[in-house]
Amino acid sequence: MSGRILALAGGVGGAKLALGLSFVLPPEALTVAVNTADDFEHLGFSISPDLDTVMYTLAGIANPETGWGRQGESWTVMDALGALGGETWFRLGDKDLATHIERTRRLRAGESLSSVMRDLAARLGVKPALVPMSDDPVRTMVATGQGELAFQDWFVRLQCKPAVTSVRFAGADTARPHPALLDTGGLRGIVVCPSNPFVSVAPILAVPGVRAALVATRAPRIAVTPIVGGQAIKGPAAKMLAELGHDVSALGVARHYKEWVDGFVLDAQDAVLAPAITALGMRVKVADTMMRNDADKRRLAAEVLEFVDELAVSGRHS
Amino acid sequence: MSGRILALAGGVGGAKLALGLSFVLPPEALTVAVNTADDFEHLGFSISPDLDTVMYTLAGIANPETGWGRQGESWTVMDALGALGGETWFRLGDKDLATHIERTRRLRAGESLSSVMRDLAARLGVKPALVPMSDDPVRTMVATGQGELAFQDWFVRLQCKPAVTSVRFAGADTARPHPALLDTGGLRGIVVCPSNPFVSVAPILAVPGVRAALVATRAPRIAVTPIVGGQAIKGPAAKMLAELGHDVSALGVARHYKEWVDGFVLDAQDAVLAPAITALGMRVKVADTMMRNDADKRRLAAEVLEFVDELAVSGRHS
Repeated sequence: MSGRILALAGGVGGAKLALGLSFVLPPEALTVAVNTADDFEHLGFSISPDLDTVMYTLAGIANPETGWGRQGESWTVMDALGALGGETWFRLGDKDLATHIERTRRLRAGESLSSVMRDLAARLGVKPALVPMSDDPVRTMVATGQGELAFQDWFVRLQCKPAVTSVRFAGADTARPHPALLDTGGLRGIVVCPSNPFVSVAPILAVPGVRAALVATRAPRIAVTPIVGGQAIKGPAAKMLAELGHDVSALGVARHYKEWVDGFVLDAQDAVLAPAITALGMRVKVADTMMRNDADKRRLAAEVLEFVDELAVSGRHS
Repeated sequence: MSGRILALAGGVGGAKLALGLSFVLPPEALTVAVNTADDFEHLGFSISPDLDTVMYTLAGIANPETGWGRQGESWTVMDALGALGGETWFRLGDKDLATHIERTRRLRAGESLSSVMRDLAARLGVKPALVPMSDDPVRTMVATGQGELAFQDWFVRLQCKPAVTSVRFAGADTARPHPALLDTGGLRGIVVCPSNPFVSVAPILAVPGVRAALVATRAPRIAVTPIVGGQAIKGPAAKMLAELGHDVSALGVARHYKEWVDGFVLDAQDAVLAPAITALGMRVKVADTMMRNDADKRRLAAEVLEFVDELAVSGRHS
């Protein structure tokens, strides 16, 4: 099958599948559109955690242990900053800091986020298109029992502890989507990576015009579960499912996506949920979704593409 | 003798004598007022080269080889920035970067430079008072055959190569001096450190009220030559003396200072110039002014204080 794959990604899980897709697709056949709603300003830097995680992962220089930042990282600046009484709750490695310094400098000079990221990604050897969901600021705000918190305050500083009652995306109503999210004409398929539905995928869909464009395309839309055995592989997705009143399961995720997703990739551990997800009107593919190594990523990506092409042939809602 | 010593300093040479003075004076008896006219904004950071050189030197953590930055420095951020296509002509070490990050953050939050530096210096263990000449921005602009250049552009990027026709201090006419430069009542003496007369000492004097306050005090004012054997110990002072039409010698410096300085510390290598400097109306002390190690710094500082006290006893213009 020809045509482009448009992958929607947040951080670690999304980055892993995006890397798998980059293994099995030619670079021009893959666009990874990344959540920017957990971007923030910290220590004077414009920080884009999900974009950087995907960029470093596609460049083969991500830190496999932390899930963020660069491999072989050192912490000289943070240590010296701590000694000076500076804020160190958001850990920025020395190599990673160069990304923030250069991005911030160029954004202040008036360049767009997509232009900066295109260049940084190219310099790090990333071949597929890596695009922010928008060049305009969108910021996830988390309503909790302790009041509304900026995402990174909740996520990193408070370690996701305050229970979440709702989430909103400040700025989303006026943000302009990246053109790649509207250019759905020649798409082979749309792949929702195994990222957090509420704070990674939802912000992308909240940018005006994106959801409509993705729904209007004839290309199949499939989602890969971020929940396996009732747990998130990484991050607070399971906790948020519970706090926001959903089933803490792949079924809960599938219900959340059912309005616009045609196919759902379910982990083999959760195969028992397949009939319930099928009953939502989605096609289901059962696979080993755990991406422990590059071979896993390649295999899952190949299965995802196979599923996309099956849906294209059979009709999405058959 | 009691009372405070007010030392005026630029970068390396000034820092060395300031360290010597800190060895022989109790902390409360030494205030080091530092040039900020070569401060600049770079990569989004507020950088204060002279303040940092003096701070690191007084803290015992200066890099003895470069004359700037911190000892045991690493360059991970700069290397990563270079790989991303960023600007690396002004080298910022990893530990040093923490200073710039923290200073910039606090200045943006509305804190004054003097307040930030007081805290950073205290955290690094600096005991004497270290004050910027002003909390307001003053910027040295160098007129050259290639047009007017910002100081660091000329000094670092162009390695002082373009010939200097004049120097001005943008912002100096409206800058407010640090109170320590006006509080000359109980001073034991004023020591002009062996710093560049044109771009380190002149900007301090250019801040409104400073020169008048220093001239009005009864305390002796002495200057230590930054030129030995017709050469600058460090930096472009000799080149600037020539290009600005002065004698490239300690005598040229003494002539430049004669209107307001009472005593001149001349290097033993230049002892032959002593009568000519005396003829300018200054008292002269011949000393070994080369500060190769801490013992040299301590010895020179002690001789400087002895000279100050001699002048106080004998009357400045005897």
